[in-house]
Amino acid sequence: MLDTFQKHLGTNLNMLHDSRLLLAISGGLDSVVLAHLCHHLNLKVSLAHCNFNLRGDESDADENFVLQLAEDLDMEVFIESFDTETYAKEEGLSIQMAARELRYTWFHELAEQLNFDYILTAHHADDNLETFLINLTRGTGLEGLTGIPEMAGNIVRPLLPFSRETLEVYAIGQGMSWREDSSNASTKYLRNKLRHDIIPVLKQMNPQLLQNFQTTISNLQDSQDLIDDSVVRIQKKFTKVEDDQIKLDVHKLKKLSNPKAYLYQLLKDFNFTAWTDVVNLLDAQSGKHVFSSTHRLLKDRDFLLLSEIDWETEAQPISIEENEKEIAVPFGTLTFDKVDAISETAPNISYVDTEKLIFPLTLRKWEEGDVFYPLGMTGKKKLSKYFKDEKFSLIEKEQVWILESAGDVVWVVGKRADDRFKVTENTTNILKIEVQ
Amino acid sequence: MLDTFQKHLGTNLNMLHDSRLLLAISGGLDSVVLAHLCHHLNLKVSLAHCNFNLRGDESDADENFVLQLAEDLDMEVFIESFDTETYAKEEGLSIQMAARELRYTWFHELAEQLNFDYILTAHHADDNLETFLINLTRGTGLEGLTGIPEMAGNIVRPLLPFSRETLEVYAIGQGMSWREDSSNASTKYLRNKLRHDIIPVLKQMNPQLLQNFQTTISNLQDSQDLIDDSVVRIQKKFTKVEDDQIKLDVHKLKKLSNPKAYLYQLLKDFNFTAWTDVVNLLDAQSGKHVFSSTHRLLKDRDFLLLSEIDWETEAQPISIEENEKEIAVPFGTLTFDKVDAISETAPNISYVDTEKLIFPLTLRKWEEGDVFYPLGMTGKKKLSKYFKDEKFSLIEKEQVWILESAGDVVWVVGKRADDRFKVTENTTNILKIEVQ
Repeated sequence: MLDTFQKHLGTNLNMLHDSRLLLAISGGLDSVVLAHLCHHLNLKVSLAHCNFNLRGDESDADENFVLQLAEDLDMEVFIESFDTETYAKEEGLSIQMAARELRYTWFHELAEQLNFDYILTAHHADDNLETFLINLTRGTGLEGLTGIPEMAGNIVRPLLPFSRETLEVYAIGQGMSWREDSSNASTKYLRNKLRHDIIPVLKQMNPQLLQNFQTTISNLQDSQDLIDDSVVRIQKKFTKVEDDQIKLDVHKLKKLSNPKAYLYQLLKDFNFTAWTDVVNLLDAQSGKHVFSSTHRLLKDRDFLLLSEIDWETEAQPISIEENEKEIAVPFGTLTFDKVDAISETAPNISYVDTEKLIFPLTLRKWEEGDVFYPLGMTGKKKLSKYFKDEKFSLIEKEQVWILESAGDVVWVVGKRADDRFKVTENTTNILKIEVQ
Repeated sequence: MLDTFQKHLGTNLNMLHDSRLLLAISGGLDSVVLAHLCHHLNLKVSLAHCNFNLRGDESDADENFVLQLAEDLDMEVFIESFDTETYAKEEGLSIQMAARELRYTWFHELAEQLNFDYILTAHHADDNLETFLINLTRGTGLEGLTGIPEMAGNIVRPLLPFSRETLEVYAIGQGMSWREDSSNASTKYLRNKLRHDIIPVLKQMNPQLLQNFQTTISNLQDSQDLIDDSVVRIQKKFTKVEDDQIKLDVHKLKKLSNPKAYLYQLLKDFNFTAWTDVVNLLDAQSGKHVFSSTHRLLKDRDFLLLSEIDWETEAQPISIEENEKEIAVPFGTLTFDKVDAISETAPNISYVDTEKLIFPLTLRKWEEGDVFYPLGMTGKKKLSKYFKDEKFSLIEKEQVWILESAGDVVWVVGKRADDRFKVTENTTNILKIEVQ
């Protein structure tokens, strides 16, 4: 293993020999082996260990293990303790995402402040295959199948060609000790399933699985490289930049055999998710648009106009026709269904008497002076009063939209319906409006 | 299921309604369900069943089952009986490849002779995922992961969006009967492993597995479409056609960040397999070349020249330098290794005393009048006499190459070594030459 590792560095990662390296170490098999290998090759490595304080005594024992290892290998070591749970709560992240964010932020800070050239992580071939399969179960595209990159910015993963088995055999042969992580986080759960139930069977089917997988990954990266190269040309051919807007040529895009493939490449950096809506925009009336969390794509005659959304100042009213089934709005998607009866109820759903509506409806931000008839109450109420009574925060208030029929509020979207449009025993046509 | 199927045809495969269809039916669940669905929708379907005579009575029982089904559904039926084993032997194919070839040849003949517009097969979503995973275990690229096409030529697979489970639930609900295939062919073995051991676990990991897989496949097809579109441009930019040759511009290719990705796209239809050799040709001396089974790629100063090989008339000698490690030759790859001792022996391996060789060696087709000293015999022998004694067929003789050192035969490649170059107790440098 040491020889192969040395050879691999020599061929692909020669720059590591003359660099200051920061090795991200958990104390588990993979990072411990990497630390030993770097030690044997006299690389200039310091260790960095995060104590996420998620597993009580075990977390502290991991920390002590790393401290001891640093002493044994005579390496500098940095330890940082995080209150991961609080951070996750504050930022609205999963524990796992929070840990990831804390970890990489700290590594990058350390690297910058102390002039480390590269950050090493101990990802290996099995991690790569596991990521591939997890992405596959979730649905993905070419990018999700090209694997963990060996280099990305200043992060380098020198163990990527090696299997977990190779690492373990080497570690045992060298009499190394390492820490087993007993945590049962959800990815951990998925990875364990793959590790114990799936990958061994795939290996039975083909003992060359991991080598073949490297070939596959390399071929897919070639395909991705071709696409990345062609994106520049695609941009030149189909878009031009004008007044802070990007204009996409509808006629040219419609001539393609697969416009979706091109629209995806042109727009993939702008956070769109409703790709079918984006494609349908090519054939939509002028004025239709699709929103992402950050951008608006507007159909304007022969062009799709892409512009950044300034949520503070921008909240243009949206007109909704009678036959509309689904419409992308700044806060998600509104769907309209004719139904026979009221079924599930939830804050994001409103049932209205279709015959009381006057189309086109208007969806707009609320304004001072807006008044509605809260469902189930007699009489009208100022929206500002309603917000006060319901103890809305300033941010909540800013984000309120209303659905309007000929000047009357139909629904304070996602909050409260209006009594005037409610379904009664005389209603024959029920419209179910839902926001997602 | 019937409704969804009808809707799917309406959206994607409307042309099936007014066409004459030939349904490939084994008698198994999938094709039986497809036959019933077509029957319910009054499609103009005839059945075609192959009896491959591979499972004795079972094969005949399958045939009888299909005959009965045709009667029940009032459909025309064609049955053809094949001697698959003999055909496989004659053509040098695996049983499975032989059956596939026989099947599709017959379907296409039937379709042509009797004016069927489309051939229907009953592949479904699980088949698609299984194929994806089998290709993954074997190593593949983007093309191998884009799935079974819904339409390819006149072959249509209308069940591709449906899972096996959906088919089975429907079949049981409708009280259908079908035949179980007890065969244990190797793909069958792989598919059974996937079906029973792997896909259920992946579904546990994500219950939306099959839907997500359809998304993945569709995204990958988008990527493939982009690449297919760009190949035309790549060809224009990097190649020109001159005198039955295609010339590839070495300088332009070398400027690319990933020449291999481009060379693959430019040459993928010409049966090359040694892609590393192909890429290395960019930096090789003029005169070096790489062969595929059908084409030669020759380095000639600023170009790679691609030409078709006419094996009958062409068999140019190849020069081999002393430090050569591996060289692509018309019949495969020759490798040269310095070894300490003779280990494995096989017809495709020859061990020679390096110091007796005079470089460059020459690899060439044998010619009338060639003479050698067969290893282990005293004295020389004409090659033509050797072939006669060894009862070589005409074709075998035509395919013989010899390795030559300064006019002396070193090895009748893959057949017999020459006594003059053999390893003796005085040998200090052993060269192991292997053909693959």
